[in-house]
Amino acid sequence: MTINYKKELETAAKSMILVHEPDVLIKMIARTIVHRIKVSHAAILLHEKDRSTYVLDISKGKVGVKIPAGFARMDTDNPLIQFFLDSKSRKIFNGGPFLLDKAEEILSGDSDDVAKELLKGAVHQIGIYESVVCVPSYFRDELLALLMLGKKSDGSAFGQDELDFFMALASDVAMAIRNAQLFRELENELEKKKRLFFNTTVALAAAIEAKDHYTHGHTNRVTSLGLEIARKMAHQNKTYADAAFMENLHVACLLHDIGKIGVPESILNKIEPLTQDEWVKIKEHPVIGVNILQSIKELDEVILGVKYHHERYDGSGYPEGLKGEQIPVIASIIAVADAFDAMTTNRVYRAAKSREVAINEIQQLSGRQFHPLIAEVFITLCREGRI
Amino acid sequence: MTINYKKELETAAKSMILVHEPDVLIKMIARTIVHRIKVSHAAILLHEKDRSTYVLDISKGKVGVKIPAGFARMDTDNPLIQFFLDSKSRKIFNGGPFLLDKAEEILSGDSDDVAKELLKGAVHQIGIYESVVCVPSYFRDELLALLMLGKKSDGSAFGQDELDFFMALASDVAMAIRNAQLFRELENELEKKKRLFFNTTVALAAAIEAKDHYTHGHTNRVTSLGLEIARKMAHQNKTYADAAFMENLHVACLLHDIGKIGVPESILNKIEPLTQDEWVKIKEHPVIGVNILQSIKELDEVILGVKYHHERYDGSGYPEGLKGEQIPVIASIIAVADAFDAMTTNRVYRAAKSREVAINEIQQLSGRQFHPLIAEVFITLCREGRI
Repeated sequence: MTINYKKELETAAKSMILVHEPDVLIKMIARTIVHRIKVSHAAILLHEKDRSTYVLDISKGKVGVKIPAGFARMDTDNPLIQFFLDSKSRKIFNGGPFLLDKAEEILSGDSDDVAKELLKGAVHQIGIYESVVCVPSYFRDELLALLMLGKKSDGSAFGQDELDFFMALASDVAMAIRNAQLFRELENELEKKKRLFFNTTVALAAAIEAKDHYTHGHTNRVTSLGLEIARKMAHQNKTYADAAFMENLHVACLLHDIGKIGVPESILNKIEPLTQDEWVKIKEHPVIGVNILQSIKELDEVILGVKYHHERYDGSGYPEGLKGEQIPVIASIIAVADAFDAMTTNRVYRAAKSREVAINEIQQLSGRQFHPLIAEVFITLCREGRI
Repeated sequence: MTINYKKELETAAKSMILVHEPDVLIKMIARTIVHRIKVSHAAILLHEKDRSTYVLDISKGKVGVKIPAGFARMDTDNPLIQFFLDSKSRKIFNGGPFLLDKAEEILSGDSDDVAKELLKGAVHQIGIYESVVCVPSYFRDELLALLMLGKKSDGSAFGQDELDFFMALASDVAMAIRNAQLFRELENELEKKKRLFFNTTVALAAAIEAKDHYTHGHTNRVTSLGLEIARKMAHQNKTYADAAFMENLHVACLLHDIGKIGVPESILNKIEPLTQDEWVKIKEHPVIGVNILQSIKELDEVILGVKYHHERYDGSGYPEGLKGEQIPVIASIIAVADAFDAMTTNRVYRAAKSREVAINEIQQLSGRQFHPLIAEVFITLCREGRI
């Protein structure tokens, strides 16, 4: 069976370019070569910029060809790497693949044109990998990878069409790797920004919480409880909980009491019972929270959690007295987590309730204060010992 | 001169894949075709997903071929689009380019196999673009673009090698477009996260600032002033001010007084003169700010600004009494902006100074309280009427 190299190349390039994981990419290439071209084995060494070294990324093919562990990387002073970095040496193979046969022929001849020491060193390196061809993969002038190939399985020599194919493939590889690297950099940047946003929100929320002496650690505990409930709900498939919802819930838990910054410290930290007016002030905190965040378009759903986390299922909550399913799920989840943590921690006007009493109370208030579904999930989690 | 299509294709694909701006990409392709293949003109219609329409993105080539404005887009019910979306119709050209010649031949024949109405409609559309070939560009089953080509400049018919080249090019185009789209999506996501981080930081900083009744709008003004100073410094090339520095300065300005959240409201809002002990409390705010933010690795440089914005050039500031160049530039910039805004706004213990008096004072204190370079830049900005 003859192989249509042009078609192979097109197919390979096409599959490659949209793979943005360099590791996956390298595996695909090695597999393609070994399976389609019937080469005994193929190894790929990939440039690691930060450490100026080339590391063996994959070695595919016939059992028995094991690369010695100590040779699993080549530093830039390795003769084979030196050979490909040196524009004069590269000319020996007209900029194409390094061919063991041809190299040995040159070495046994009496030409003085070439740096025989370097060529000898390169041949030795290729021998370590039991290879007969080494294909360099450049992006612009940067040597990004080396492809080492063993003999063809049928014992025949590589034809020019095959060598052309390897060079074209190597060029595609370089491009695909570079593209994947750019993608990876962008993804890392995105991860960093996400982390920065979360960490800053956590830090500022904690600083604000510290104004209220009675609620130390409350935000953190409500966040853990809230996320645990949502995960369980998703698991039971009883509500939506995609990545965006989880992220919004996370932020909403962190910020649910942010409005307390607008309540005077003298009220938050008062030891005597609060007056009617002081209670009115306290109950303003969800709306103050909304005012703080309302200009941030991306926080639309978060704001629902902040605004309605003191609503009650039977409509007796605040600020709007919403009922049942009118209350956004994100707020109903925070309500359960918030109430449980409040019950089980000391307040100035009462001691903490025991875990069992609090769980029992949430069960009792299911369908009145709490959304029955969410209360049920919460109780299940408690029974399973996960809260 | 004959053209090596394989080489052309490789070069084109290689340049394409790392261009992550679809617009630039499309221009490159049209230019390549018109200049290298000597086609009288080329137009590219690009799929707009959101609006399920194909829009003319570029029309290159000989003067005089102007696409009528009303025809600059094709909706999905357009016969030419329909033709390429219909797998049966596509078979007429064996999945290859639509050829005007061949289509007219079929229409004049008496075959009943084909949907002649659709073919007729497609021919009409191609005529509008004065084209003779239309090359579809698919990614998987999605029709991403149409490439419309005029006659060859030398009047000859397109050869099979040329048509093959167009199809391969179109396939590369589809891949490159898809890749560029993925890149764009990631970049948009990154922009959104950056905005979210900034907006949330602004909102929370403003909420915290509101606790101090005397400093309304202070954070915003310090931020504008600080950024203006840094831009001027960068312009005069007197200090580093790359994008990362500007971003850090921005955040540091927003958060410079964040530690005030740890100072009791009773002190912040006291009308009577402060006692010695109360001053000590106030002066803790930079260090409290550091404590709030210190776990956030990404804010290393921001933290320097928060920590040292009350240091003075002569070493008489706090918290550490750093001197001269020991004080990080980011903190020295905030120091000037902070002092100017404090001078020019009312405080409970004194009325606001006039702009002129404040500017004069900063000049007087240059080299003592303020970094001379930064004070100078600030004065220049004032003279230019930009502050």
